[in-house]
Amino acid sequence: MANTWGKNFRITTFGESHGKAIGIIIDGCPPKLAIDEHMINQALAERKPGQSPITSARNEPDQCQILSGTFQGKTTGAPIMILIQNHDAKSKDYKHLANVYRPSHADYTYTQKYGIRDYRGGGRSSARETATWVAAGAIAQAWLKLYNIQIQAYVSQIGKVQMKKKYRNICFKNVEKNMVRCPEKKTAEKMLKTIAKAKKNKDTVGGMVTGVIQGTPVGLGEPVFDKFHAVLGQAMLSINAAKGFEYGSGFRAAQMYGSMHNDVFIQKNGQVKTKKNYSGGIQGGITHGEDIYFNVAFKPVATIMQTQQSIDLQGNTTYIPGKGRHDPCIVPRAVPIVKAMAALVTIDFMLYPQKNSHHEAENSTNE
Amino acid sequence: MANTWGKNFRITTFGESHGKAIGIIIDGCPPKLAIDEHMINQALAERKPGQSPITSARNEPDQCQILSGTFQGKTTGAPIMILIQNHDAKSKDYKHLANVYRPSHADYTYTQKYGIRDYRGGGRSSARETATWVAAGAIAQAWLKLYNIQIQAYVSQIGKVQMKKKYRNICFKNVEKNMVRCPEKKTAEKMLKTIAKAKKNKDTVGGMVTGVIQGTPVGLGEPVFDKFHAVLGQAMLSINAAKGFEYGSGFRAAQMYGSMHNDVFIQKNGQVKTKKNYSGGIQGGITHGEDIYFNVAFKPVATIMQTQQSIDLQGNTTYIPGKGRHDPCIVPRAVPIVKAMAALVTIDFMLYPQKNSHHEAENSTNE
Amino acid sequence: MANTWGKNFRITTFGESHGKAIGIIIDGCPPKLAIDEHMINQALAERKPGQSPITSARNEPDQCQILSGTFQGKTTGAPIMILIQNHDAKSKDYKHLANVYRPSHADYTYTQKYGIRDYRGGGRSSARETATWVAAGAIAQAWLKLYNIQIQAYVSQIGKVQMKKKYRNICFKNVEKNMVRCPEKKTAEKMLKTIAKAKKNKDTVGGMVTGVIQGTPVGLGEPVFDKFHAVLGQAMLSINAAKGFEYGSGFRAAQMYGSMHNDVFIQKNGQVKTKKNYSGGIQGGITHGEDIYFNVAFKPVATIMQTQQSIDLQGNTTYIPGKGRHDPCIVPRAVPIVKAMAALVTIDFMLYPQKNSHHEAENSTNE
Amino acid sequence: MANTWGKNFRITTFGESHGKAIGIIIDGCPPKLAIDEHMINQALAERKPGQSPITSARNEPDQCQILSGTFQGKTTGAPIMILIQNHDAKSKDYKHLANVYRPSHADYTYTQKYGIRDYRGGGRSSARETATWVAAGAIAQAWLKLYNIQIQAYVSQIGKVQMKKKYRNICFKNVEKNMVRCPEKKTAEKMLKTIAKAKKNKDTVGGMVTGVIQGTPVGLGEPVFDKFHAVLGQAMLSINAAKGFEYGSGFRAAQMYGSMHNDVFIQKNGQVKTKKNYSGGIQGGITHGEDIYFNVAFKPVATIMQTQQSIDLQGNTTYIPGKGRHDPCIVPRAVPIVKAMAALVTIDFMLYPQKNSHHEAENSTNE
Repeated sequence: MANTWGKNFRITTFGESHGKAIGIIIDGCPPKLAIDEHMINQALAERKPGQSPITSARNEPDQCQILSGTFQGKTTGAPIMILIQNHDAKSKDYKHLANVYRPSHADYTYTQKYGIRDYRGGGRSSARETATWVAAGAIAQAWLKLYNIQIQAYVSQIGKVQMKKKYRNICFKNVEKNMVRCPEKKTAEKMLKTIAKAKKNKDTVGGMVTGVIQGTPVGLGEPVFDKFHAVLGQAMLSINAAKGFEYGSGFRAAQMYGSMHNDVFIQKNGQVKTKKNYSGGIQGGITHGEDIYFNVAFKPVATIMQTQQSIDLQGNTTYIPGKGRHDPCIVPRAVPIVKAMAALVTIDFMLYPQKNSHHEAENSTNE
Repeated sequence: MANTWGKNFRITTFGESHGKAIGIIIDGCPPKLAIDEHMINQALAERKPGQSPITSARNEPDQCQILSGTFQGKTTGAPIMILIQNHDAKSKDYKHLANVYRPSHADYTYTQKYGIRDYRGGGRSSARETATWVAAGAIAQAWLKLYNIQIQAYVSQIGKVQMKKKYRNICFKNVEKNMVRCPEKKTAEKMLKTIAKAKKNKDTVGGMVTGVIQGTPVGLGEPVFDKFHAVLGQAMLSINAAKGFEYGSGFRAAQMYGSMHNDVFIQKNGQVKTKKNYSGGIQGGITHGEDIYFNVAFKPVATIMQTQQSIDLQGNTTYIPGKGRHDPCIVPRAVPIVKAMAALVTIDFMLYPQKNSHHEAENSTNE
Repeated sequence: MANTWGKNFRITTFGESHGKAIGIIIDGCPPKLAIDEHMINQALAERKPGQSPITSARNEPDQCQILSGTFQGKTTGAPIMILIQNHDAKSKDYKHLANVYRPSHADYTYTQKYGIRDYRGGGRSSARETATWVAAGAIAQAWLKLYNIQIQAYVSQIGKVQMKKKYRNICFKNVEKNMVRCPEKKTAEKMLKTIAKAKKNKDTVGGMVTGVIQGTPVGLGEPVFDKFHAVLGQAMLSINAAKGFEYGSGFRAAQMYGSMHNDVFIQKNGQVKTKKNYSGGIQGGITHGEDIYFNVAFKPVATIMQTQQSIDLQGNTTYIPGKGRHDPCIVPRAVPIVKAMAALVTIDFMLYPQKNSHHEAENSTNE
Repeated sequence: MANTWGKNFRITTFGESHGKAIGIIIDGCPPKLAIDEHMINQALAERKPGQSPITSARNEPDQCQILSGTFQGKTTGAPIMILIQNHDAKSKDYKHLANVYRPSHADYTYTQKYGIRDYRGGGRSSARETATWVAAGAIAQAWLKLYNIQIQAYVSQIGKVQMKKKYRNICFKNVEKNMVRCPEKKTAEKMLKTIAKAKKNKDTVGGMVTGVIQGTPVGLGEPVFDKFHAVLGQAMLSINAAKGFEYGSGFRAAQMYGSMHNDVFIQKNGQVKTKKNYSGGIQGGITHGEDIYFNVAFKPVATIMQTQQSIDLQGNTTYIPGKGRHDPCIVPRAVPIVKAMAALVTIDFMLYPQKNSHHEAENSTNE
């Protein structure tokens, strides 16, 4: 398995949905950053199940412990270990799944790949894993704030209900004002209705999250294979249930003409800006200092409360009853995960070797 | 810079658009594979400029030389070096660009990041780089064919002209029957008209490429951070001008219900299949043996033959004349690049450590 | 920091000498391997302090917990988390060190590098870290045994007392028969006297460990930059207090002639062998199937029970009293660490992509 | 194969001893560094065969071409490709080796590992590969000089002839004053006699190279797994024929007491120094600013001009005549290789993410 993300700010995660605990080691966090368990728990609260009527009823306090890497309240440069105990792991809820492959889950592929599968919940393929990403993202965001880099995200679509405003015209403070995390009040209400309807029908529904990274310096991202948007894309596509990623003009660019799409440079208060930022803050894979904005599409949760046809491990047709505790729509809970992964990508690029540093030496020897 | 791609079948590339040569080292190619310069040149011919009236007039023979890694016509396991000389590099065409930032190009970001920029053509940010990917992809595809894995790609959209057929109903042999590489004859004609119109208007136009990977075994991809589709997404977003990536149901999944989207497993001729394959051949990040299909959106080429407003290195407003040799639409030439990157991703996962190998040992000691 | 080791069987560690806990995530362990806490605790017992009169009096039970990665007693392919609580961490023993740099410790370099230092014990630079390596090594060795690969190590030198027998003439069962882990009984007694003398003098003493890897297949190691012995060397030099590494003929090779040093191949019972194995089981960086043997030199422990001159954080001369609990000689406790690192290197190479695998495909298509 | 070295200043190499060319891609070189082919050729001249009566008679001009990565004489941050053509490759000299395994060469292990072997010369296992390392090292050294970091190396032992002076008392300008690269004139003469004797006897002889890195800042190296000396050790053990590595007090430390070995810190002209530097410039894996010194042991060259017993590919006993062009002693030619690898290790650590960088941000927000 590949359970490590990042080159400079590296996270390595472990834990199964219904095991003893999940957790994360963060390696490469800059020293002398003030962090504590409280700030991480606050971030976890945005993601945790049971937070509202539209989320899973699983009751996890999601209180973390920092086991290493800090001294007197500050990071030391040593690896930071964050542990989150599993409490409400009702393994017996899952015994009926030991011999079947659930549709659109990872049951079949894991069993084939490893020859063994922990059938209690999703095991390693469960979205419970993402709690550890959110913990790491909280630390990354704390560091990024020192540089005035802000990470935002919100729900821009649930089922067929889409937001109208573009990200530029949004007040991000409104995101957390409703359960669905959509900053347009009326659209949020429609989205809630869509989710309620799905829940009532013992069904689930998909949606879209829009993310925005503001305040990055010019120059993040590598020109050929670690383009900022390509790494960001992989990060977003790593989130459970993600099916697509686009940035800047995205899929709309396919139908546009160059004369319309090209971003004219202008000088504004001594800073280089573009008129339209169809580039999405990135040119040639490298940030140019304007807002980076992107969309991530999520499929509907695969666990539905309806009886479904499938096959068992011997290949016989079987029917799986709709049981367990799951979200009718995961998209609102994906918002903190999108923010966390965007923060991890951004801090990783911020910590890339500063290759121009030798100019200082060059200059100093010229004196 | 990050000029290396892959973990097991690793490519490392070099070269500027208007330098002496471009090239690639392939490290990790399995030994005893029959390869030669002719098969690579054939692949390069699909990508090279000047191949048809709708591509750039730059005249590059794109004939490669294999400088290492083979012995008596077969790979030896040693790194394979492939060199492609630049011939038609008219550097003087670019002198007028030394002091300006072209809109939606990487001029500004490179200059800011590195403090120096090779202004002859796009330098390192030019799509000329992708010729080396195609060369490596040709070798990867030769190896994958031994396992009956096929990589397909075609143009599914140019501007507002979209194909109607889904990939399942397509005869892939038709892709190369027209310049635009769209397997629907009538749609291809409309696409050609769109491109011709753009060219006439001294403009460029965007589009979309659909890729299909057929015949992969069950079990490719890693569960958490190197999910097959996430790595594939990064690979596609690494291609110049790519703005979005989706696989399986993609962005449409956002508006679907779980009961509709879930892929029911069925047994078919002794093999496990799904009824609809909205999963796009991947579940939990791991291939399940059905077709992997995906879309990549491309923006219109930034170089247009019109005069454009921009700024110079000092921040003054300036106007850039429309000069040079460029494609009115890059999308048909992106088809072999999409195939190459899909092949590189697939071979890399095929060469991952086979972690179940110890079973053999386990069994043998049980005897 | 770089707290990850290995490419295929990867370990990532965390924890400070006097923090809450130390631990390790193992990523890439093959599935279906039977492991449990008991077998790891047995390995930890070989390394733990307080095991005999010649080791540190720190009393750590070193009982591990496996928090993830197993199901019904077997590995699942998911990351394995092993946690070891710190119990006997007397932080107050170290307050007098907050403002000084101990000679030949990492106090000065850590403080300069990170601008902050956890002065309780060695923090991250303490050899306590190696307990987690031993835990991972126990799992690696369990897997290697399925392939009949055995890892051996013993103390071959303490101070000026050196073993006479070469590794070929040793009965490895005698290693654990004495506290000093030297398989030559009389030499072991002399070594114990040397250590006792050092302890009485409030001093410490250095030594050497010899390691032997038996039963590897032909073909482990990469030809150019990941030569088996080069990676093994880095692994051994990562152990605290290691100052040198040699394999096969080692430093003696510098004074030899080619006609004497060359390993003549012979056929023996249908297997290719060499007459003398000066190559140390490795030719061109690749194992040839014979015993891999090597030496690691360790300096004396830096913490002595004598008052030592040094400087404080302000650069003033100061004197540090000899306090705390430390080993007069770390070398016997280094034996399980050397075995663990040798096992980690070996399993990592065993899990490298099997690049010849395509022959099967080639053959099967020929049928 | 693993043909890439380094994390930040990465080299990837290719080419066989008797193929068309060898070469290297350098990725991660800081921009704006003045380099040219002349300076690289000068470094290559130190390593190339045929430079003196004690080296191989193979006549290679070893003139490089820079194919990418520079613009107007300076690096641009793009990958630098350096190509060295093979000229005097007498492949027919090697046909008699197609069916035999030469003693202490990589013939047997390559054949077993890859199932195919380029038997012209050593193929990929030839020390000809190291010419590319020397080319990269020349660029690294040019950059390091901007920071006043100097890399030195010299021959300290040939056969049983050992230098008496320690590195501190040596005038490095004397190294290049004799063919054997030993800065002690009389010792050099004895060494030359030893080599001449070996040559006359159609034999070869081993030796030792001492390396010294001067002027590094405090703080290079990572605490746990990328300790400066551990990475340096792997680099040195990657050189063909290397059998051992030690730094600072090295193997002598095994027989020392802590009270003798400990490095007392002193303040000297406002700088922190140690009295004896047994630490070899490194504490806890991190440089402390004093000289880093180390020894590398080399075995005698395996190709001797005598008839040797061996086996053929079928396992039959055979006799190999002493033919071809080879060095009676490779150690003097290893000096530039040791310097190159030391430079590559040092620049790589110099380019590690500067993790303290956030202090600036922290400070600026405090204002």
